[in-house]
Amino acid sequence: MSATTPVRLALIGGGPGSFIGPVHRMAAELDGRMKLVAGVFSRNADKSRRAGEAYGIARERSYGDIDALIAGERARADGVDLIAIATPNNSHFAIARSVLEAGFDVISDKPATATLDEAIALRRIVQATGRRYGITYTYSGYAMAREARELVRSGRLGAIRKVVAEYSQGWLAQPVEREGNQQAAWRSDPLAAGAGGCIADIGVHAFHLAEFVSGQLVSRIYADLASVVAGRVLDDDCQLLLRFSGGARGVLLASQIAAGDRNGLRIRVWGERGGLDWRQEQPDQLIVNWSDAPSQVFHAGSSYLSEPAQRARRLPAGHPEGFIEALANLYRDYAEAIRCGAPLDQDRIPGIEAGVRGLGFVAGALAANRTGSWHQLNGLELET
Amino acid sequence: MSATTPVRLALIGGGPGSFIGPVHRMAAELDGRMKLVAGVFSRNADKSRRAGEAYGIARERSYGDIDALIAGERARADGVDLIAIATPNNSHFAIARSVLEAGFDVISDKPATATLDEAIALRRIVQATGRRYGITYTYSGYAMAREARELVRSGRLGAIRKVVAEYSQGWLAQPVEREGNQQAAWRSDPLAAGAGGCIADIGVHAFHLAEFVSGQLVSRIYADLASVVAGRVLDDDCQLLLRFSGGARGVLLASQIAAGDRNGLRIRVWGERGGLDWRQEQPDQLIVNWSDAPSQVFHAGSSYLSEPAQRARRLPAGHPEGFIEALANLYRDYAEAIRCGAPLDQDRIPGIEAGVRGLGFVAGALAANRTGSWHQLNGLELET
Amino acid sequence: MSATTPVRLALIGGGPGSFIGPVHRMAAELDGRMKLVAGVFSRNADKSRRAGEAYGIARERSYGDIDALIAGERARADGVDLIAIATPNNSHFAIARSVLEAGFDVISDKPATATLDEAIALRRIVQATGRRYGITYTYSGYAMAREARELVRSGRLGAIRKVVAEYSQGWLAQPVEREGNQQAAWRSDPLAAGAGGCIADIGVHAFHLAEFVSGQLVSRIYADLASVVAGRVLDDDCQLLLRFSGGARGVLLASQIAAGDRNGLRIRVWGERGGLDWRQEQPDQLIVNWSDAPSQVFHAGSSYLSEPAQRARRLPAGHPEGFIEALANLYRDYAEAIRCGAPLDQDRIPGIEAGVRGLGFVAGALAANRTGSWHQLNGLELET
Amino acid sequence: MSATTPVRLALIGGGPGSFIGPVHRMAAELDGRMKLVAGVFSRNADKSRRAGEAYGIARERSYGDIDALIAGERARADGVDLIAIATPNNSHFAIARSVLEAGFDVISDKPATATLDEAIALRRIVQATGRRYGITYTYSGYAMAREARELVRSGRLGAIRKVVAEYSQGWLAQPVEREGNQQAAWRSDPLAAGAGGCIADIGVHAFHLAEFVSGQLVSRIYADLASVVAGRVLDDDCQLLLRFSGGARGVLLASQIAAGDRNGLRIRVWGERGGLDWRQEQPDQLIVNWSDAPSQVFHAGSSYLSEPAQRARRLPAGHPEGFIEALANLYRDYAEAIRCGAPLDQDRIPGIEAGVRGLGFVAGALAANRTGSWHQLNGLELET
Repeated sequence: MSATTPVRLALIGGGPGSFIGPVHRMAAELDGRMKLVAGVFSRNADKSRRAGEAYGIARERSYGDIDALIAGERARADGVDLIAIATPNNSHFAIARSVLEAGFDVISDKPATATLDEAIALRRIVQATGRRYGITYTYSGYAMAREARELVRSGRLGAIRKVVAEYSQGWLAQPVEREGNQQAAWRSDPLAAGAGGCIADIGVHAFHLAEFVSGQLVSRIYADLASVVAGRVLDDDCQLLLRFSGGARGVLLASQIAAGDRNGLRIRVWGERGGLDWRQEQPDQLIVNWSDAPSQVFHAGSSYLSEPAQRARRLPAGHPEGFIEALANLYRDYAEAIRCGAPLDQDRIPGIEAGVRGLGFVAGALAANRTGSWHQLNGLELET
Repeated sequence: MSATTPVRLALIGGGPGSFIGPVHRMAAELDGRMKLVAGVFSRNADKSRRAGEAYGIARERSYGDIDALIAGERARADGVDLIAIATPNNSHFAIARSVLEAGFDVISDKPATATLDEAIALRRIVQATGRRYGITYTYSGYAMAREARELVRSGRLGAIRKVVAEYSQGWLAQPVEREGNQQAAWRSDPLAAGAGGCIADIGVHAFHLAEFVSGQLVSRIYADLASVVAGRVLDDDCQLLLRFSGGARGVLLASQIAAGDRNGLRIRVWGERGGLDWRQEQPDQLIVNWSDAPSQVFHAGSSYLSEPAQRARRLPAGHPEGFIEALANLYRDYAEAIRCGAPLDQDRIPGIEAGVRGLGFVAGALAANRTGSWHQLNGLELET
Repeated sequence: MSATTPVRLALIGGGPGSFIGPVHRMAAELDGRMKLVAGVFSRNADKSRRAGEAYGIARERSYGDIDALIAGERARADGVDLIAIATPNNSHFAIARSVLEAGFDVISDKPATATLDEAIALRRIVQATGRRYGITYTYSGYAMAREARELVRSGRLGAIRKVVAEYSQGWLAQPVEREGNQQAAWRSDPLAAGAGGCIADIGVHAFHLAEFVSGQLVSRIYADLASVVAGRVLDDDCQLLLRFSGGARGVLLASQIAAGDRNGLRIRVWGERGGLDWRQEQPDQLIVNWSDAPSQVFHAGSSYLSEPAQRARRLPAGHPEGFIEALANLYRDYAEAIRCGAPLDQDRIPGIEAGVRGLGFVAGALAANRTGSWHQLNGLELET
Repeated sequence: MSATTPVRLALIGGGPGSFIGPVHRMAAELDGRMKLVAGVFSRNADKSRRAGEAYGIARERSYGDIDALIAGERARADGVDLIAIATPNNSHFAIARSVLEAGFDVISDKPATATLDEAIALRRIVQATGRRYGITYTYSGYAMAREARELVRSGRLGAIRKVVAEYSQGWLAQPVEREGNQQAAWRSDPLAAGAGGCIADIGVHAFHLAEFVSGQLVSRIYADLASVVAGRVLDDDCQLLLRFSGGARGVLLASQIAAGDRNGLRIRVWGERGGLDWRQEQPDQLIVNWSDAPSQVFHAGSSYLSEPAQRARRLPAGHPEGFIEALANLYRDYAEAIRCGAPLDQDRIPGIEAGVRGLGFVAGALAANRTGSWHQLNGLELET
């Protein structure tokens, strides 16, 4: 592939009215290394075609189902390289399996699948097919989330002792799923979302970030999940206690009934000598507090930052980048791997391992909550 | 008592080198309604006298022990009205008992006593003697903590669903108790501090504020306490899950090993329609987020605030007040009750009930942590 | 033009190593309504071609000069619709003239031209040719800058009395133009930048925003400009006093030697009843302080915002958008005007009038500074 | 004087209903080194006595005029040492003269006098009498304002180039002086306040802080003053351009019609390598931005701070101190000077030189505003 031909992308899901579809397109194309050229935007072929038109996709490349997409794109000399999955959780596994086995690379919305068993099965498929598989833990794409990880790696904080990850939203504080909100409807329906509600929708983001930044894996979970809004089946408010592989302890809070909160993802990690604090709603700043020195504020786009943080940023300091750019960082690195014929660098793009861990976390949280006891996050590692 | 004669105060503890002694004097005298005139600042009568001199106390009113204080002050026509207890936790009970039974009113540092049994016993003594008893939950003295409570009471947030209370310090991130830090030494010594470390030292503040602001009582606790610094016997990092009497759920985090953190007390309370957020390190602001309207920032000293918030403030908006003024609010209201011959208004000055609840919380947290199960906060109410 | 065919864009300037070139491409293409298909990226045709390749542009559409671009694109059925000018200031006029007269629409970096005379001449050309002309006052594209303007328009602040606009950068605190920094080199060279340094580079942004948000025009200027860094010819630090057409008074500060500052653009506007405060480095928030009510914080992406603010935003509240999205808002509205065959809505895309005013401001500031007296911003309006 | 006998203080002004009277008492007595024992709180002896009672002052030491105070206190063995002046500006000079000549030390509210001539005359009196004279530039008493000065002195910012001082209030945005607001009434009455309104009331604070922190003296002023509220005689909104003795340039903004602002005093100072930023409404933080390193946040009460900052603080980091404590820092150092028989350290307590400079600034601003030209701040230095 030429260095300047964009990687060809198909999108499954993300049709009209969805929030995430246009975001995928914008992020994928932002850096000019990828191009959305095909998709399945609805099970109704006509609707799919019309949606595709809004994306500027040729009529014949907007398909009504996955099989048609696979067949159509395999038949083309300029068929897509990569398939993005942006459907409700319960379909992730089947779609990913189909397209991987058909020889395409995949980038999937989180959670990787609807259940842990599916995730483990998907891992085998990824291995068997040898295709690339990435997962859009978008928040890990922010420059300063990466700086946070590098700060931990540098050892400057000392051994990590304590992690607090929070993800606080308020948009489900009322039963909007029964008032016509489509986003809310599938997320609160076990058939579409799986057994986890808030825990699977945003809890996994906080979980991923906690492991991503701390450099430790969660080994044990105690979970207190609730369905606060009357009539809701799935959890909408989650409070968890954590143990990490490296000895740290932690807390993970995820809520979608925190009325008035917007998208309050925050990660704090403390070591022996200081602690870091990063908030997604002010993503260009990383605050570091020290035991015996002034606090520091690291600004995205600055030349004093680590290479991974500089790489994940387009503009000089003081020019805000946001959510789209964070997701674009994942797409950009994915495109480069494809262009170079290289495997995905898990340091840059979370892969199926992160996917399995996310589902392990959801399953563990549900089990811990059900039994009222600590749950061991065992058996997630690949058996060899 | 004349409306302009200051209430006469004795201080027990708070001798040279202590942080809290001078704070008590400054706060008590700030509004001109109280005067520190006697005290026991050391068990060594000479040292006590020298410390008293630094406070401007007459030589003969700096005593070497409680009995001498009681005898001396009872013998004077101008003997003290109120006795403040600022000693390590393990002595609170005995001192409070002695001085209450000797007919003095008491204002005590938290926790009220070293154990729950002591606290319950002290409650009986308070009742039996009919003396006033207040406890310095200083943070509840801040104007905007009171505004927060009034906001909840107003019902504007709707029914309260969720509470997150955090108290995060870093000064015990290293074993400073073995390096000559006196404050750290007694706090990490079970003989002086009681069975709780961080949970009793600062956890109780977060607990009190959670109940104070939310207007609900904690009914059940799950606790995960740890001694993170090697060699430390008492807990220094606490993560707890909570259930409240009114149905809310919550989390309480207290840590003294959060390296780099200063005095990070923060309370967040969410109702059906919005949530409030108050941080002690920026005490003049109360942030309220709404589901469907711009966020609001309430500023201390403003004329639009509730009466309790206005009462707890001396200066117009934009003129910061701090920790000393917050404690002074408790002392001022205490002085007024004495002057008027009225009982303490528990809405303004936490009393022995709050003291019992605090020890109940510590005992419950220790029990829950030991047993690995939820602990019911039962039996704290006064039997009648 | 079909509703889904992207508008075709050429870019002049913004070649390899430039900051602004890739930003134009990303912003123009972000919403899928425009596509960069041609350009002049260097005076050297080979270099231009190589740069074009990096943008994914067909070899034959990367030209070595404007005339070639015009000739080439006019000859194509699929020739460009719009030409973006991202060259140093001194070339803006000549390029704009050529391409307007050749029948293309223009979107130009600020300042519109290098001198006021040029700007006035350009206005005549825009009128004569009947082509669209827009100018990238990017900061006015932010959702919350637009909300600020709407708030003023709503009258809720009362009559506007006071405006403070600041733009504070530190990147020229050292003579980096003599140390190989290309961005700094042309900006501090009068031959490339024109007679104004900081005042023309960033002062015009603050000026535009002051008029944009306050809804008043600057009528008089007093200016105190300096070249702080030894050896620098053009101004690098500017402090100005302002009078507005509606009676407001104001201050405009612009500096490129404010060491440590990043991109500190901030606008504050006070009326009789309250004041607003918007900072580009935290663009998703608009703070409004009221005389007799709690402050408010408006969050971008919220449903309670004005239509112009909602229109200028892709993501729900809590998902940060940044500088690229702000510029994309201008490009998106430009694309729509082209698609609809409508003139540019000056409310959404600053046009040549804003360009003339910007150069009038620069000329006025230089004159006021030279004479040490207030300068009237007269004669900028179109004579009819 | 014994090391523990409090310095005896009399207060002139600050009677019932005043804001500043109780603040003086609280601040003076906060650290136990001073005691308010006498005063003139009204020209009506009866009213003065009743006010004195509220302060806990003996009936015979609440006087109806200055002469009576002087006579009464000189006649006592325990007469006052120090007299605080908290009356409207126009009386400062006469009172200060009387009490200095009567042999008392003085601490005066700003501005030192109502006119520059008076201030210069007062300087001669201070010299002639050899008494101590201090002025309550309260904001310079904050720990972090002092840290800011020390940072400049340390040279770490490099040569100072730029100063922006702002003081923004909104309480005079409406003509409250005609609606019964006493504070507003005398401040907007030239007979009571002098020729300067906002410039003399709060402009002098910003001016003092600018010189205090930057370590440079203002040498030239350009002023743009206005009476924004209809019917107001004195200025209520001030924008000034400054030149400093050390070559720095600057801006000073002071407003009392910035509706919604509370007490927005802020000072920013930039040197060659970085800039500092301190805001009175968040006084415990000092932010420092660096050209090539992360920003720093210095926290009051930290052990890494300079000696002057540590000295000006009672509590450990994270325990807010406020306005009263800032003023108390001045009183404490004043008390210590009296106790030691030492002159005032101008580094800690602004003296008559700062007073003369303040009036020179007001006179210069008024002259510059009247003439529309730059005014030299000459002749303020003591002729020798």
